[in-house]
Amino acid sequence: MKQKALQDYCEEAYSYCYGCGHLNEKGLQLKSYREGNEAVAIFQPKSYHIAVPGFVYGGLIASLIDCHSIAIAAASAAFERGENISAHLERFVTGSLKVDYLQPTPLGIPLEIRGHAEEVHARKIVVNTVLLVDKKVCARGHVVAVRMPDIMKESA
Amino acid sequence: MKQKALQDYCEEAYSYCYGCGHLNEKGLQLKSYREGNEAVAIFQPKSYHIAVPGFVYGGLIASLIDCHSIAIAAASAAFERGENISAHLERFVTGSLKVDYLQPTPLGIPLEIRGHAEEVHARKIVVNTVLLVDKKVCARGHVVAVRMPDIMKESA
Repeated sequence: MKQKALQDYCEEAYSYCYGCGHLNEKGLQLKSYREGNEAVAIFQPKSYHIAVPGFVYGGLIASLIDCHSIAIAAASAAFERGENISAHLERFVTGSLKVDYLQPTPLGIPLEIRGHAEEVHARKIVVNTVLLVDKKVCARGHVVAVRMPDIMKESA
Repeated sequence: MKQKALQDYCEEAYSYCYGCGHLNEKGLQLKSYREGNEAVAIFQPKSYHIAVPGFVYGGLIASLIDCHSIAIAAASAAFERGENISAHLERFVTGSLKVDYLQPTPLGIPLEIRGHAEEVHARKIVVNTVLLVDKKVCARGHVVAVRMPDIMKESA
């Protein structure tokens, strides 16, 4: 049986994220899967997701790293509480995002994003990721995830 | 006469960027304009550019900060050489991107992105930006821009 993506444990009201919500029809619909202590996502950019012809747009890379990291943070918070991933995962948001672009990311080959929680605290979770093409690291991400503030819950 | 956007000084071959290329029909087509020592861009997110309902997607914010900063880097490099912005601007790319999300960015109101070059070196240009809604800073960006590597020129 195919493993359920981490994003699919999100409450319906929070499943409209442009980067990873399965209910956002115009969105990227990134899906992250557990693999040992890591999570992995595979994404095939569209032909128009370019910086210059032949190379993937850096803003797309930042978006994928962002959403993948937030999913990892939500799963890690559940583990920290001793819970299995079964019901809904808590919704985290991005406090800060850092991306180092190490080399140009060629277009046409699926992107692989891998990450793990580096630190799990009560108030924030630090997630490190790499984005690879053909096993070669093209970018590194460092995300600080925080619990969703109440003001964002009221609108959902 | 309306001022020409910094991105419109880009060579045609490099005007397909998903974030700011005027020839990318599926892209965001961000346009940045000089205003004193700063550059400013106004962007109206679409209804589907959300993180959770009512709030702008962080990956979009990162993309806008990225493209706006790269345009500022290109203009700053020209000024540093004592050139006016008249012909084509050199194409820069992102070495690193950091975004601090200070508060949720409400959807529906145009986003204002302002920035300036903090440091102009031969090998890199550091650009600081803020993203505002109704004059309130919602995010801060810090971008290190570098000259486009030769490998990216060959494909264009």
